[in-house]
Amino acid sequence: MRGFDATEFAARTDRAQSMMQAAGLSALLLTTEPEIRYFTGYLTRFWESPTRPWFLIVPSSGKPIAVIPSIGAALMSETWIDDIRTWSAPDLTDDGVSLLADTLREVAPADAIIGVPDGHETHVRMPLADFRRLQEEIGKRDLCGDTGIVRALRTVKSPAEITKIETACAIAGRAFKRVPEIAGEGIALEAVFRRFQMLCLEEGADWVPYLAGGAEQGGYTDVISPATDALLQQGDVLMLDTGLVWDGYFCDYDRNWAIGRVSANVQHAYAALIEASDAALDIARPGATAADLYQAMNSVLSRHDADTGAGRLGHGLGMSLTEWPSLIPTDHTVLQPGMVLTLEPGIAVDGKVLVHEENIVITEGAPRFISPRAGSELPEI
Amino acid sequence: MRGFDATEFAARTDRAQSMMQAAGLSALLLTTEPEIRYFTGYLTRFWESPTRPWFLIVPSSGKPIAVIPSIGAALMSETWIDDIRTWSAPDLTDDGVSLLADTLREVAPADAIIGVPDGHETHVRMPLADFRRLQEEIGKRDLCGDTGIVRALRTVKSPAEITKIETACAIAGRAFKRVPEIAGEGIALEAVFRRFQMLCLEEGADWVPYLAGGAEQGGYTDVISPATDALLQQGDVLMLDTGLVWDGYFCDYDRNWAIGRVSANVQHAYAALIEASDAALDIARPGATAADLYQAMNSVLSRHDADTGAGRLGHGLGMSLTEWPSLIPTDHTVLQPGMVLTLEPGIAVDGKVLVHEENIVITEGAPRFISPRAGSELPEI
Repeated sequence: MRGFDATEFAARTDRAQSMMQAAGLSALLLTTEPEIRYFTGYLTRFWESPTRPWFLIVPSSGKPIAVIPSIGAALMSETWIDDIRTWSAPDLTDDGVSLLADTLREVAPADAIIGVPDGHETHVRMPLADFRRLQEEIGKRDLCGDTGIVRALRTVKSPAEITKIETACAIAGRAFKRVPEIAGEGIALEAVFRRFQMLCLEEGADWVPYLAGGAEQGGYTDVISPATDALLQQGDVLMLDTGLVWDGYFCDYDRNWAIGRVSANVQHAYAALIEASDAALDIARPGATAADLYQAMNSVLSRHDADTGAGRLGHGLGMSLTEWPSLIPTDHTVLQPGMVLTLEPGIAVDGKVLVHEENIVITEGAPRFISPRAGSELPEI
Repeated sequence: MRGFDATEFAARTDRAQSMMQAAGLSALLLTTEPEIRYFTGYLTRFWESPTRPWFLIVPSSGKPIAVIPSIGAALMSETWIDDIRTWSAPDLTDDGVSLLADTLREVAPADAIIGVPDGHETHVRMPLADFRRLQEEIGKRDLCGDTGIVRALRTVKSPAEITKIETACAIAGRAFKRVPEIAGEGIALEAVFRRFQMLCLEEGADWVPYLAGGAEQGGYTDVISPATDALLQQGDVLMLDTGLVWDGYFCDYDRNWAIGRVSANVQHAYAALIEASDAALDIARPGATAADLYQAMNSVLSRHDADTGAGRLGHGLGMSLTEWPSLIPTDHTVLQPGMVLTLEPGIAVDGKVLVHEENIVITEGAPRFISPRAGSELPEI
């Protein structure tokens, strides 16, 4: 099923409002795509255009209020939102700021604290000059952090959300399985990238916002570069890492292939990556922390050269390609059923890196793989 | 050719520094993908991940300085940038803020004004809490607007940039030409969306960040909704609007098709859209303004119901799907050779909308179409 029942959005809003009350917040002001979609179901690729700001206010009670450009009115009216206030954007003298200020004055008392997501992984998606003007226009109402409310809500997924992520993972799994059809010695990496995206679409992706990877002798230089026109050669390790989307939810995992034969060093390093993700998997249960998963993987990786520069060994996943938490030593987020995580160990080997990535769901018991679990031998093309 | 010569980045930086001097700015602080890529050539799809902030400082002289997560160091070192300062991100206690503050203190005097893009179409891509902390850490240095410097530079494209946009347009043109292969009565719109993205890739797109469209009887409800599973029917008008990317540059135009026969009203409205874009084309020369193009189109459209809610009749185009200026009555941006624009007239007809879009380049003389100019008859599938 595409979309969600209205009850899902009502439950999200109720939870937010309970947390807002506990934190002393009179409203939340949201400006980014996942934040607004989380409370509304408003799904469009139009966010690719940086021109127009979009606003959602979660009041202390009742449904959220949309303050948006008129171009979005028709689509927003198909969501569960009733109160939709629009202006004709772009407006070079007042691009929604006074309409937003009016609405905030209406829903929040004169001395209110209004929560704006302000922590890691967030930004305020509106012009800085307009944000400063908004602060002036709402009087003594204070635009403070949201105390992590939106992050806390989004980190634990509902069963319906998990189903969508699993659907995305399954689509990617079918596409990855078909990589031998499109990759091999003598084929340019950029052709592989292009054709792999076509496979993702053919297998059911709505779109493919993210694809990265590499292919060099025995590994790759990094995991974020665009493809070059270099031809795949015997001894390359090809890696493809995709974040494709189904109904607004991402998968994010990778697969590696040896092009012909690779060195024993590389095979050994690859096996260590699988061993590392298995080590994290073994302890990925409610009560363990993100840092614990990091340590479990690092205890395997540190027998090798684990300095890949990536900065972490996995992360949350859902409406965004990457979400809270981060698998790093200092992230003490406690795992809960419904969290969806990537396990993403990396190793440096002979001047190159190798990275493996799986997606799992935390349950009451053992975690569940939602990417097709890879074996410990590097598959050969 | 992919990428640019280093001379292109040096010229961009020189122009920025001249404008900064005139405006009294000691540095620019940039945080978003197109802003950073404009001065560096740093091209990666990794921006899809919201986790890590990225910073670029343009000092009053010399090359820009990158202050970025270590995961980006290898790729940034392949650009013309020499001074690359990294931290291991994510860092939950200090995610690059003190490194950025140190660098700003180094390049800008104690009473400096530092320009941050703060106007329409911009945002500051870093957590609000970190931005506020940065302001505290840099003493009396003031984070002000950039007086539109980055916008002014990006609005006028170099020949090399225009070639990339034209390449993207040509790829889309070949894909649009093949739409009759994938669309027709009885095919679901979501299958058309999926297959059209595959055609874009097959014809050479690096990726397809944007696709919108619609297909209903005699038009569509809006132009930003995702595809549904509704089957195309006789009498539908199918519209596909794509922003595909080649080497980091977008096209952005649409095409319409009648599925079988449509009413005379619809055919008449479509012809008016072509007439409107032709009217803008006739005057799209240096010295005319964005508002003039709006008025030229609106004089044709206002003979019909021109209220589509879109808010404008076209816009700039380049490293982003939509860029400055906007074709609206109040945008008095004067056209200059090297600007790339979309002409995007819309009409409401019998409760639906129809939108047509072309891409043009402003030259010293008559403008040049870079999308394949559509005829005034709605093509039939």
